[in-house]
Amino acid sequence: MSTPQLPPAHPFDDDKLREECGIFGVVGITDAANFVALGLHALQHRGQEAGGIVSHDRDQGFNSARRFGYVRDNFTSQSLMETLPGPLAIGHVRYSTTGSKGNTAIRDVQPFFGEFSLGGAAVAHNGNITNANALRRELIERGSIFQSSSDSECIIHLMARSMARSIPDRMEEALRKVEGAFSVVAMTRTKLIGVRDPLGVRPLVLGQLGDGWILSSETCALDIIGADFVREIDPGEMVVISEKNGVESHFPFRQRKPRFCIFEHVYFSRPDSILGGRSVYETRRQIGVELAREAPVEADLVCPVPDSGTPAAIGYAHESGIPYGMGIIRNQYMGRTFIEPTEQIRNMGVRLKLNVNRALIKGKRVILVDDSVVRGTTSRKIKEMILDAGASEVHFRIASPPTAWPCFYGVDTPQREKLLAATMSEEEMRDHLQVDSLRFISLNGLYRAVGEAGGRNDLHPQYCDACFSGEYPVRPADMLEQGFEMKAAE
Amino acid sequence: MSTPQLPPAHPFDDDKLREECGIFGVVGITDAANFVALGLHALQHRGQEAGGIVSHDRDQGFNSARRFGYVRDNFTSQSLMETLPGPLAIGHVRYSTTGSKGNTAIRDVQPFFGEFSLGGAAVAHNGNITNANALRRELIERGSIFQSSSDSECIIHLMARSMARSIPDRMEEALRKVEGAFSVVAMTRTKLIGVRDPLGVRPLVLGQLGDGWILSSETCALDIIGADFVREIDPGEMVVISEKNGVESHFPFRQRKPRFCIFEHVYFSRPDSILGGRSVYETRRQIGVELAREAPVEADLVCPVPDSGTPAAIGYAHESGIPYGMGIIRNQYMGRTFIEPTEQIRNMGVRLKLNVNRALIKGKRVILVDDSVVRGTTSRKIKEMILDAGASEVHFRIASPPTAWPCFYGVDTPQREKLLAATMSEEEMRDHLQVDSLRFISLNGLYRAVGEAGGRNDLHPQYCDACFSGEYPVRPADMLEQGFEMKAAE
Amino acid sequence: MSTPQLPPAHPFDDDKLREECGIFGVVGITDAANFVALGLHALQHRGQEAGGIVSHDRDQGFNSARRFGYVRDNFTSQSLMETLPGPLAIGHVRYSTTGSKGNTAIRDVQPFFGEFSLGGAAVAHNGNITNANALRRELIERGSIFQSSSDSECIIHLMARSMARSIPDRMEEALRKVEGAFSVVAMTRTKLIGVRDPLGVRPLVLGQLGDGWILSSETCALDIIGADFVREIDPGEMVVISEKNGVESHFPFRQRKPRFCIFEHVYFSRPDSILGGRSVYETRRQIGVELAREAPVEADLVCPVPDSGTPAAIGYAHESGIPYGMGIIRNQYMGRTFIEPTEQIRNMGVRLKLNVNRALIKGKRVILVDDSVVRGTTSRKIKEMILDAGASEVHFRIASPPTAWPCFYGVDTPQREKLLAATMSEEEMRDHLQVDSLRFISLNGLYRAVGEAGGRNDLHPQYCDACFSGEYPVRPADMLEQGFEMKAAE
Amino acid sequence: MSTPQLPPAHPFDDDKLREECGIFGVVGITDAANFVALGLHALQHRGQEAGGIVSHDRDQGFNSARRFGYVRDNFTSQSLMETLPGPLAIGHVRYSTTGSKGNTAIRDVQPFFGEFSLGGAAVAHNGNITNANALRRELIERGSIFQSSSDSECIIHLMARSMARSIPDRMEEALRKVEGAFSVVAMTRTKLIGVRDPLGVRPLVLGQLGDGWILSSETCALDIIGADFVREIDPGEMVVISEKNGVESHFPFRQRKPRFCIFEHVYFSRPDSILGGRSVYETRRQIGVELAREAPVEADLVCPVPDSGTPAAIGYAHESGIPYGMGIIRNQYMGRTFIEPTEQIRNMGVRLKLNVNRALIKGKRVILVDDSVVRGTTSRKIKEMILDAGASEVHFRIASPPTAWPCFYGVDTPQREKLLAATMSEEEMRDHLQVDSLRFISLNGLYRAVGEAGGRNDLHPQYCDACFSGEYPVRPADMLEQGFEMKAAE
Repeated sequence: MSTPQLPPAHPFDDDKLREECGIFGVVGITDAANFVALGLHALQHRGQEAGGIVSHDRDQGFNSARRFGYVRDNFTSQSLMETLPGPLAIGHVRYSTTGSKGNTAIRDVQPFFGEFSLGGAAVAHNGNITNANALRRELIERGSIFQSSSDSECIIHLMARSMARSIPDRMEEALRKVEGAFSVVAMTRTKLIGVRDPLGVRPLVLGQLGDGWILSSETCALDIIGADFVREIDPGEMVVISEKNGVESHFPFRQRKPRFCIFEHVYFSRPDSILGGRSVYETRRQIGVELAREAPVEADLVCPVPDSGTPAAIGYAHESGIPYGMGIIRNQYMGRTFIEPTEQIRNMGVRLKLNVNRALIKGKRVILVDDSVVRGTTSRKIKEMILDAGASEVHFRIASPPTAWPCFYGVDTPQREKLLAATMSEEEMRDHLQVDSLRFISLNGLYRAVGEAGGRNDLHPQYCDACFSGEYPVRPADMLEQGFEMKAAE
Repeated sequence: MSTPQLPPAHPFDDDKLREECGIFGVVGITDAANFVALGLHALQHRGQEAGGIVSHDRDQGFNSARRFGYVRDNFTSQSLMETLPGPLAIGHVRYSTTGSKGNTAIRDVQPFFGEFSLGGAAVAHNGNITNANALRRELIERGSIFQSSSDSECIIHLMARSMARSIPDRMEEALRKVEGAFSVVAMTRTKLIGVRDPLGVRPLVLGQLGDGWILSSETCALDIIGADFVREIDPGEMVVISEKNGVESHFPFRQRKPRFCIFEHVYFSRPDSILGGRSVYETRRQIGVELAREAPVEADLVCPVPDSGTPAAIGYAHESGIPYGMGIIRNQYMGRTFIEPTEQIRNMGVRLKLNVNRALIKGKRVILVDDSVVRGTTSRKIKEMILDAGASEVHFRIASPPTAWPCFYGVDTPQREKLLAATMSEEEMRDHLQVDSLRFISLNGLYRAVGEAGGRNDLHPQYCDACFSGEYPVRPADMLEQGFEMKAAE
Repeated sequence: MSTPQLPPAHPFDDDKLREECGIFGVVGITDAANFVALGLHALQHRGQEAGGIVSHDRDQGFNSARRFGYVRDNFTSQSLMETLPGPLAIGHVRYSTTGSKGNTAIRDVQPFFGEFSLGGAAVAHNGNITNANALRRELIERGSIFQSSSDSECIIHLMARSMARSIPDRMEEALRKVEGAFSVVAMTRTKLIGVRDPLGVRPLVLGQLGDGWILSSETCALDIIGADFVREIDPGEMVVISEKNGVESHFPFRQRKPRFCIFEHVYFSRPDSILGGRSVYETRRQIGVELAREAPVEADLVCPVPDSGTPAAIGYAHESGIPYGMGIIRNQYMGRTFIEPTEQIRNMGVRLKLNVNRALIKGKRVILVDDSVVRGTTSRKIKEMILDAGASEVHFRIASPPTAWPCFYGVDTPQREKLLAATMSEEEMRDHLQVDSLRFISLNGLYRAVGEAGGRNDLHPQYCDACFSGEYPVRPADMLEQGFEMKAAE
Repeated sequence: MSTPQLPPAHPFDDDKLREECGIFGVVGITDAANFVALGLHALQHRGQEAGGIVSHDRDQGFNSARRFGYVRDNFTSQSLMETLPGPLAIGHVRYSTTGSKGNTAIRDVQPFFGEFSLGGAAVAHNGNITNANALRRELIERGSIFQSSSDSECIIHLMARSMARSIPDRMEEALRKVEGAFSVVAMTRTKLIGVRDPLGVRPLVLGQLGDGWILSSETCALDIIGADFVREIDPGEMVVISEKNGVESHFPFRQRKPRFCIFEHVYFSRPDSILGGRSVYETRRQIGVELAREAPVEADLVCPVPDSGTPAAIGYAHESGIPYGMGIIRNQYMGRTFIEPTEQIRNMGVRLKLNVNRALIKGKRVILVDDSVVRGTTSRKIKEMILDAGASEVHFRIASPPTAWPCFYGVDTPQREKLLAATMSEEEMRDHLQVDSLRFISLNGLYRAVGEAGGRNDLHPQYCDACFSGEYPVRPADMLEQGFEMKAAE
């Protein structure tokens, strides 16, 4: 079942991996939903398709609003925000991973809400449940009615069927049945709950503002409301926060060695966030430094592919001593797809978003620093723009290793055969892109940049790097069922 | 939980009882949803708040659209209707009875849909489940998650939990647990299903168009699509209709003596419909005739309160020989509430909808014929308009007995204490309204007008007339729980 | 130049002549625009395509709002109405006659506004300027820039170029250059102005509410705001009304014998209005009486074609003694065009608006009373519906003479060759419609019904009846230029 | 008169001077309007409030569309763009300078259109007419009716009244009466016309794409459609371009020494545009270099205030050898104003748009490079954010001289008393902003950066720099009339 209210398409961004969700929750602050709206706005880069907020007020009970489009375009109206009263609220921004792709119904927009015999609860989920198909089949068999096509809805149905005596206990019970990667923010009438899966694949942090507590995907969303960053929620930890009892911490899952998503450092998180005690900006700058060491080249200009390549380009320029310059200018008003009047423009669609600074590029040997190469379609167009503008050489330096495997833990990736690095070697990619040189940072270089001086521990990798290595820390059960073939053991 | 997208208010109609729903279903006709849209348009008088359609297509599966507002404003767009393909569709128009009153969320709009292990099903319900609270509590206790605040949603959850091997069997099982009044139209991937409760309180008819079959609340909706009226669904009957097997009939409930809602004849149904083999228009005209016999008065003009009083006024005029005339003119463009600039206009709000034909009224003794008196607020305003226009006498004749009891079977009635007839005798009402005379048709007169020559059988009344008599054929369990006091046995 | 925001189409009403405009103005009442909105709502039958209001407030100057669609859907929002402050306001509802047909831009919506050296003025016009093309050419030649494609805009440009020292004087000067039919409501910063052309073709009345004054196309719009009807503006009269000086009357034009539009009595005006001292309802009823005398027939039922045929049907039934009944039921929720799923429904499109009351019609000889026959397309469909429902005979009685000539004075009529009566005799029309009999009221009968006991004065007709007689009281200069051929002198 | 459809407010940008308009025209390319839409999108930084396009097609004549909001949100719909056919089109994006500020009606949105006796013409204007009040008074006196409150509308009325025999001749005649700064793009049925005022204050360039010609405010808009940059239109030049005759050049005005707006180099134009043969990016980078020479300071980090301070910061860092870093991160999803739940957030409103990269800033001596200081309100908030994040010192370096005078040539500036530099010396400003140091580039330094090796020629300045110097090259007649006091001659 589907309702055709499609969000705007962003054709250019099709060539990026895409984080699917941002989550945010507040307890103990008057008009909590207003703070949630601000927090979700700061997390908008994690999901642009739709957003939702649920709040609870002692007199007016639970209220919710779910909307397609940007937070700024929906959750800024006085009349809407007044329908979301109370000191407790959670919210979610989404770009769909599961759920009917490109054809999302408002029913698919989180948080999900359920009325249980012991009161209502709302749940917002960042990540992906790798055994969702099996769980869903089983729940339907027993009479649960799913509202959405989202894998996340399993959690609330498992909670509804639990016989545990409190909602946090039901959530524990539910999440123990769930495989995959998840950070969850949930709420009851009085409690804000946060959970991270045992591997801690997706981020979740705790903040404080006066007497109130905040849960957020990233620290940048604490900044926007002036809250203090307290600490990260630990992998496998569940926090239950109430105005009365403050923050209570539990570890309901069997302990495992953490495997945080290394791509959060490369691209997903905002550069002004802190992940694992490290500045994302500084990590990216350091990737540039490592890249300059690993893959130097003689050139006249280091130029970022805006905006995500900028910190690594600054690092590369600094380390190499080659001048840094804005050779590509981004149109900040990019939005819906224009009618492209001629074939010529259609082929250059990227121009709607980017323009070359011809005067700077002309006659120069240019190093382009980008965060990643996914399908490679954009890289090729950018190379053409740069050459058209008169560059004498084009060298690509990529701030991540070749992306050769899809992610099944809450990131939107194309099918494996669409990934350029799945079918080509680095040299083949260089030839395919027709550039003078193409170099990716090594996996060890990346680990060094995130602070692992000794590089990757191949026996017990410190991060989830499945998209680069093909080593999946959680078995992707649903995908295997659908025919996905894992990397052969070596 | 609520989402504040309120439908337009119709202040004037607040002084009417209001049917809550119309239902319509089609099987075996290409693009069935277009026919459903037309049928719902013809049933719009049964519910103006919102409407929904679910269709099924072999390739595209189930699709649905639910919208606030009139059918004509939503289900007329090519782009929307194209999302509802297939030869099988059901629809629903609603004015809320249960469900968060005046604050309906789109989640409350029917048909309800559930994906079961043996396939999907959609259900649209006209009526009211009198044991819904108990059922809902029990279902939630066992882990069902309700999407809406509607009592009707119980049906689909009972079906989801049933262990019966076919969807029609599950529906039987579900409806056997349900008390109250209901006509239901439902669909599976291949079947259209219609059910009436054992008392047959709410209407449901079967029609045929070429090879296709139609279920509808009223026959007027068969006319709009050019379908033939085949027969009424019998009280207690379930029909299961498929392209392959045609119409199969079952009687799954314990048989009871039918008690069709007599108010459908008085007001709810459209005058061009056929109910129980009788023309609604003719019945209403006959009510006027009976009223002229029971309550004659010398006067110069018989004037209907438009539009619902018109047929009875024609009958009254014909029987009495007093000329019939349009003393009150209705503004056909009535819609949302205007800003009423002065106190004077505010008090006369009814003028936005009605205007007196002064030239006709002036100096005359006027008989006003209306269908019913609920709160009495409108009657008083109309009387003032008529007197302001220079009438020398005003006589009210009401085409139904005093409405002294609320309906619990799918009709929106005010609480008992708001019903004028619950607290006043006919004479007190006359004094309250300050008119020269006020007469209601007798209950026996009404029964005669609907064709019961011998009047009401007080031992075994032929109709449900609880709103007049206080004799409820089904125990209103939820209401009793909430403190409603039934009429003392006499 | 055009902007494609099209109003909803009303296919059924294509077979009516259509009044193009209603005008309304208020001076001396706080928040005058709210009263104008109510007045325009009561005049909505005179124009459904769009509406506009201009108001003036001493502090905030002139403000305006123009919208497509019904008054009730636009001028009811608090936020919009608050932008129209002040004690002086005029408004206009329109159905386009001139102006880009079916493709109106918001620029074409009146009132028109001009800032002159001696202050601003707004003008709303009901009627048609028959020398607009020549005037427009001349004004453009001299440097005026037209905003719209409306003939009415000439008036404000003529005023702008006038060298007279006051706005009323400029309006006099402008209107003396204009040929055709016009009622005008205009305003300056302090004055409300009303004018009728020397023949008084279109209506305009004066009302009073407390210290305030009102101008309106019809008296029914005085009723809605509780104002008293003072008198009609005389043909050729200009009234200039201010809070300070009250109503001043002038007669700026050369005097002529009045020729009020007789079709206002037949169809355009609302039945609860008073025209020329006569109740419109009573006139229409009297037309029915005359028709019963002129064209009796043996039958079982007199049935109006709703809603415009109703008063004449009541008169016909009363005079003939044949019972009156609602054989055709109107769907009050009619709106935008539905997708018509089959050829069968497409041919019967009228069913979306009307349904036959089969039980009443079956086996009867039916007299259908309609107000007019224009193209005849609807009459034929209605006849088919009646026969399908089992009527044994169908007799049409038409409450106006054959419409054989287009109107050039502010009414939307098809081209002459599209008028059924332009090419067929009464008998040919009867054969064409395939009915048992078809009779129109005679021109003399119509004149008697409007109170001219001696019938039509053929030498000096008392009314403009050009649509019936082809005798045009004002030479249609623009149309002659475009090749229209007038009736040959006899 | 006003219609309250307000565009979104951008509170943060209130502390910038703001270019008011971008203009773009195309002739000789099929579906020219699609190209205009793309061009306007690339010029969106010159006006975000509204946009309009007029096109001409031989069969369908002139068509226009005017909309509030971004080009990307309006001129991307197939259905709208299909209403703008033909090989000739012009467009305009606007941020109001004159015209009812903050309360613009759609009538104020350009291009303006007029139908003349010799055919229609549309005009789009970038700049400001300094004698508009007098012209407007005179035109109204003679009977012109203005549609808008825009000064630009004078041009089309002057053209309408001209007796010249061709539209280009009428435009010449009109523009000779106009004082002030203007670049104009206009069109007739067959010709595209471009004009720059004799001083050449505002930019206008000519491009070529295949057989078609383009006029644009900036070269970056040629890039987006893949057109070649041919040359700038010369100060005082009028080009008349047709498919038939190509580009014809005239110089209708008395020749004067050019005075191009120097602020286009500093802020208004996009960094990837070419102005006066110079790369805007390179000029800004060079300003940073000059600033580093003029105002060095010991520090740890050069940090741009994004995005407009970036090129100068790169130049400053390069020249000074101090590392460049992104200390402030911009939220790219900024839009409408959020509800700011607490006083604390209200005071820090800038956080909705910007966030400090704490990890980078902490403990460092930071040089902030911004393009200009207008009111100083934003500078103060940014300084506070930087200090809150733990910077040990904050030094402001401003890439333009103190803005001490309002612009009257098409730029939105606050009244003089609101300009921080109008009332304070550099030191007072430093104290006011409470920073460790504050330095503006010198006027001579700025001239050097734009390529005038010898600095400013004080006798005959090479640019219009009135906002810095108070020396106005065109007498601001309207403003003087309203009481503005010019700088006393020294």
